[in-house]
Amino acid sequence: MRDLKIVDFLDQLADRVPAPGGGATAALHAAQAAALLGMVARYTTGEKYTEHAETVVAVIAETDSLRARALRLAEEDAAAFTAVTDAYRLPKGEERSAAIARALAGAAEPPARVAETATRLVELCELLLPIGNRNVVTDVAAAADAARAALTTARVNVEINLRGIKDERVREELNIRISGVDAAVARADWVTAEVREEIS
Amino acid sequence: MRDLKIVDFLDQLADRVPAPGGGATAALHAAQAAALLGMVARYTTGEKYTEHAETVVAVIAETDSLRARALRLAEEDAAAFTAVTDAYRLPKGEERSAAIARALAGAAEPPARVAETATRLVELCELLLPIGNRNVVTDVAAAADAARAALTTARVNVEINLRGIKDERVREELNIRISGVDAAVARADWVTAEVREEIS
Repeated sequence: MRDLKIVDFLDQLADRVPAPGGGATAALHAAQAAALLGMVARYTTGEKYTEHAETVVAVIAETDSLRARALRLAEEDAAAFTAVTDAYRLPKGEERSAAIARALAGAAEPPARVAETATRLVELCELLLPIGNRNVVTDVAAAADAARAALTTARVNVEINLRGIKDERVREELNIRISGVDAAVARADWVTAEVREEIS
Repeated sequence: MRDLKIVDFLDQLADRVPAPGGGATAALHAAQAAALLGMVARYTTGEKYTEHAETVVAVIAETDSLRARALRLAEEDAAAFTAVTDAYRLPKGEERSAAIARALAGAAEPPARVAETATRLVELCELLLPIGNRNVVTDVAAAADAARAALTTARVNVEINLRGIKDERVREELNIRISGVDAAVARADWVTAEVREEIS
């Protein structure tokens, strides 16, 4: 996905093919949030921001790494999705059921990771909001909005895979991993509200 | 932007350059929402969906056109942004003030259009939700989430430009154009909640 032209990615998204779909868009939302925070951090350097220099350097490094991670998750999402459709194509029997269960648990993994990545991105929005260069404060809000979309879209994608998973332990573990989404969404909304207040 | 690789777009987004920024991401969110709805519509064809065939054909055509429009708006956003920075570089005087006012009003135009496009996309989510192929119902939620992010990010970008616009008529007109964002956001949230309810 990383080497696709934007116009071609969108064409594939609109096409009657199983992937890319919502999973890829969730990951791309997270990647955009990371990139926007990276830009805000890069505009928060120089003499005026000396006291925050250490934080800013750390944010640049972390957002670059989260951006790369989100792009990888978009690719893993497509691969995990293909594994599910492959499992359903196996001849009926015990082996097929086991393969489907494994594939569904595998397909829930990339969106669960996207949700975790997006949660961290919301924290970084909160970290940059008070210290970032005011000329790009709207980009902190844009990052919060993008992280929020990543959170909610990833959660739905975990939930749809949960539906087919019978193993109670796997179910419980996945449920725990998405249990913080509402709180992270509320924090993202707070960031956007603060930015709107500041520019009003 | 359309011909940029995704990885290069994200690199530019993270870079210390004025554009692309939040404006481009808002437009890309809208383009993704349009693409996802196009996919859902393309999966809603054939005998089983005969009674909705006319609607589905219309949705495919409209989402394709909204997707292209959103991509154009991303490009217009970058151009309008450059016009603002150019205006600020003019020598001080009446001409500069007039040029800045014109440029700011121009810069508010692409995000205002993104918000309008995203509002229509939320309506199309509501239209497809009850009739679309259930196998891709989570993609209707993903489209609603993406349209929501387009709405809120575009609104902040209209608001930041509004701050510099003195002309009361221009201000009022822009305020009217973003006055429906909260209602559209609530409708997008309803779509996602309905999908989560259905798959739970």
